[in-house]
Amino acid sequence: MNSFPLPDNAEAIMLEAVALAELGKGLTVPNPCVGAVLTRDGQIVAKGYHHGPGQAHAEVEALRDARERGVDPRECILWVTLEPCNHTGRTPPCTQAIIQAGVSRVVVGATDPNPRVVGGGIAFLLDHGVQVVTGIAETACEDLIADFLTWVHTPCPYLYLKLAATLDGRIAARSGDSQWITNAVSRAMVHELRGRAQAVMVGAGTLRVDNPRLTCRGVSGAAPQSSRFQPLAVVVGSSLPEPGADLFLLRERPMETIFLTTVETASSARADDLRELGVRVWGAGTGDLVDLRSGLVRLRSELGVMDVLCEGGGGLAQHLVSENLVGEWWLFLAPKTLGDAQAVSMLSGSTVERMNGARHWRTARVRRLENDLLLVLRPDDMAAGKAEDKERS
Amino acid sequence: MNSFPLPDNAEAIMLEAVALAELGKGLTVPNPCVGAVLTRDGQIVAKGYHHGPGQAHAEVEALRDARERGVDPRECILWVTLEPCNHTGRTPPCTQAIIQAGVSRVVVGATDPNPRVVGGGIAFLLDHGVQVVTGIAETACEDLIADFLTWVHTPCPYLYLKLAATLDGRIAARSGDSQWITNAVSRAMVHELRGRAQAVMVGAGTLRVDNPRLTCRGVSGAAPQSSRFQPLAVVVGSSLPEPGADLFLLRERPMETIFLTTVETASSARADDLRELGVRVWGAGTGDLVDLRSGLVRLRSELGVMDVLCEGGGGLAQHLVSENLVGEWWLFLAPKTLGDAQAVSMLSGSTVERMNGARHWRTARVRRLENDLLLVLRPDDMAAGKAEDKERS
Repeated sequence: MNSFPLPDNAEAIMLEAVALAELGKGLTVPNPCVGAVLTRDGQIVAKGYHHGPGQAHAEVEALRDARERGVDPRECILWVTLEPCNHTGRTPPCTQAIIQAGVSRVVVGATDPNPRVVGGGIAFLLDHGVQVVTGIAETACEDLIADFLTWVHTPCPYLYLKLAATLDGRIAARSGDSQWITNAVSRAMVHELRGRAQAVMVGAGTLRVDNPRLTCRGVSGAAPQSSRFQPLAVVVGSSLPEPGADLFLLRERPMETIFLTTVETASSARADDLRELGVRVWGAGTGDLVDLRSGLVRLRSELGVMDVLCEGGGGLAQHLVSENLVGEWWLFLAPKTLGDAQAVSMLSGSTVERMNGARHWRTARVRRLENDLLLVLRPDDMAAGKAEDKERS
Repeated sequence: MNSFPLPDNAEAIMLEAVALAELGKGLTVPNPCVGAVLTRDGQIVAKGYHHGPGQAHAEVEALRDARERGVDPRECILWVTLEPCNHTGRTPPCTQAIIQAGVSRVVVGATDPNPRVVGGGIAFLLDHGVQVVTGIAETACEDLIADFLTWVHTPCPYLYLKLAATLDGRIAARSGDSQWITNAVSRAMVHELRGRAQAVMVGAGTLRVDNPRLTCRGVSGAAPQSSRFQPLAVVVGSSLPEPGADLFLLRERPMETIFLTTVETASSARADDLRELGVRVWGAGTGDLVDLRSGLVRLRSELGVMDVLCEGGGGLAQHLVSENLVGEWWLFLAPKTLGDAQAVSMLSGSTVERMNGARHWRTARVRRLENDLLLVLRPDDMAAGKAEDKERS
């Protein structure tokens, strides 16, 4: 389909569309995030992204932006992160808008995995004489809709794992103290991430040690514009705090707090006492092990939670990793070391005898946040099976 | 001194000179590494770097390169990572070569900390009508001579610490197995790093578990061109292996192996048995604690070792960190996780109660090596004292 010449900066242009799409993260649920740009002579001349359900799709936004700027779309290449839709949902099909605007060259990042659309959008464009190129910045465009794929193909919410650690992999000193590991820029970004999620999840140990609010406050303490509601607080653990404990969530946010615990604990007297405060206590799983998958499914089916952000601790994080529940992992690394083997581990709870038993990730993004480093990692199940070559150091 | 306009890509040009200088790492001892380029209209038209003692300095190399290419230096800006020397050592002063070549504009990265030179080179150029700009990519240029500063100001060798770890900060699985954490590109770079060092150091535990060769073999198993000799092997620990142990270093490299241990252990019968193999056994420090600083000083004074590469394990690494002996730390992070709190820690042996007791580093470089990540970190003692702001998560 590579039927017209692309500018040298093709990948950079598509990544610009990806960045636009990401502005819609947390707002488009249950739609995928999509970004689009128009270029003339390799220069971006118009931009658009999907702002949310019922609103214009990215392509339509970009075409509207072009008209406002007096740019003629017929002279432009349209770049869109996701295959244009070819069906009438809450809005008319984008393929028709593209053809009506006279656009004759389209670059598509990822093809649409939605069963109603596969091949349809591109095929329709080709049938109507539009030239289409695919496969530019494809991985970044596919990563963009990983949440959407989870929504379509599983009953789970999409799960972000966020951890802030020292270079030597510790999320707290041996005393449990963790304030602060990362810098102010990193911490502001965590609040942005909370703005994407309808629920923030922590382990019972983190609740006890950190007494967090789990609200989305932006840098200055105010909620960022993008979060119309505060995310729910989800606490996971086989035990429950006393109802009289001096915890912010119990005192200030009981109606927004959910304890995810085992079936036994959920039927205890303490659970009932907590429920009297307005707190939800849900049981799933037996013994010491909370059934995380069931809990997540229930968050989605019962409370409409589509994006969950887990902020640790290390035991809960590793439990999510082991159960293949992590969609993407935001790892903030501060350039510090503790050098203390008794400090709190970033991930804990598994028993792995040999290095080839390690779990593999793909580094989707590396970003410097002043002196901190943000790694965005995605599960890389393809790599896990790779043969390891052997030689001696 | 900013007395002439610089091109927009000034920093990138100086970083190119830094990259050239680094080609001399391991070869220039005891001279500093220096790189130089000539630009015309913002384009690099000639290059040079210092190849080693007694050979031409970087500026002279760049001027020679210009002549060979038919470039007139009088039309160019000269960029040099370090202030040009103004004294006659093994080679004539560079300042005179610059003036003789008719160069009228010079950009200097770092000023020369050498007591014989400070201010001298730049002052001499200014006196002779050469315009000089300083402060471009200054930190990178200063980092380049960190080894040289160690040689000039301390009796120690310059110490590189290299660790290869999982994202969760583990250098081996709980069984001790560590083959392999990082990918082939990272491992090739470790051999390059060994080529810079006259000695490679490991802890006694690493010797026992990994039975390493500690040679510099390049990617294909052959020693890279830059290493004329194999580095010495230095093993640190309060105990010694049996002379009959099936260890590569004892069998194949006894004359190149040094055990750095405590005074008591160095005077034991086992130490004498090891010496019979040709191994050196040096004692420094009492009780369980080897005196690393003394050992390093002796490596330099007795064997002329100017660069040491420590490759772990975590206990030795943290001991070096605690003693402020690390010049730069090359941390290879593989996108893998173990999730096992019993896996071997990247750094261990310290007791730190609170996060504000963490040691701070400066991230001098971040480089992606396929799916691995290389961080080059430098001690950041300035940051350690910074007030930490307090707020609640």
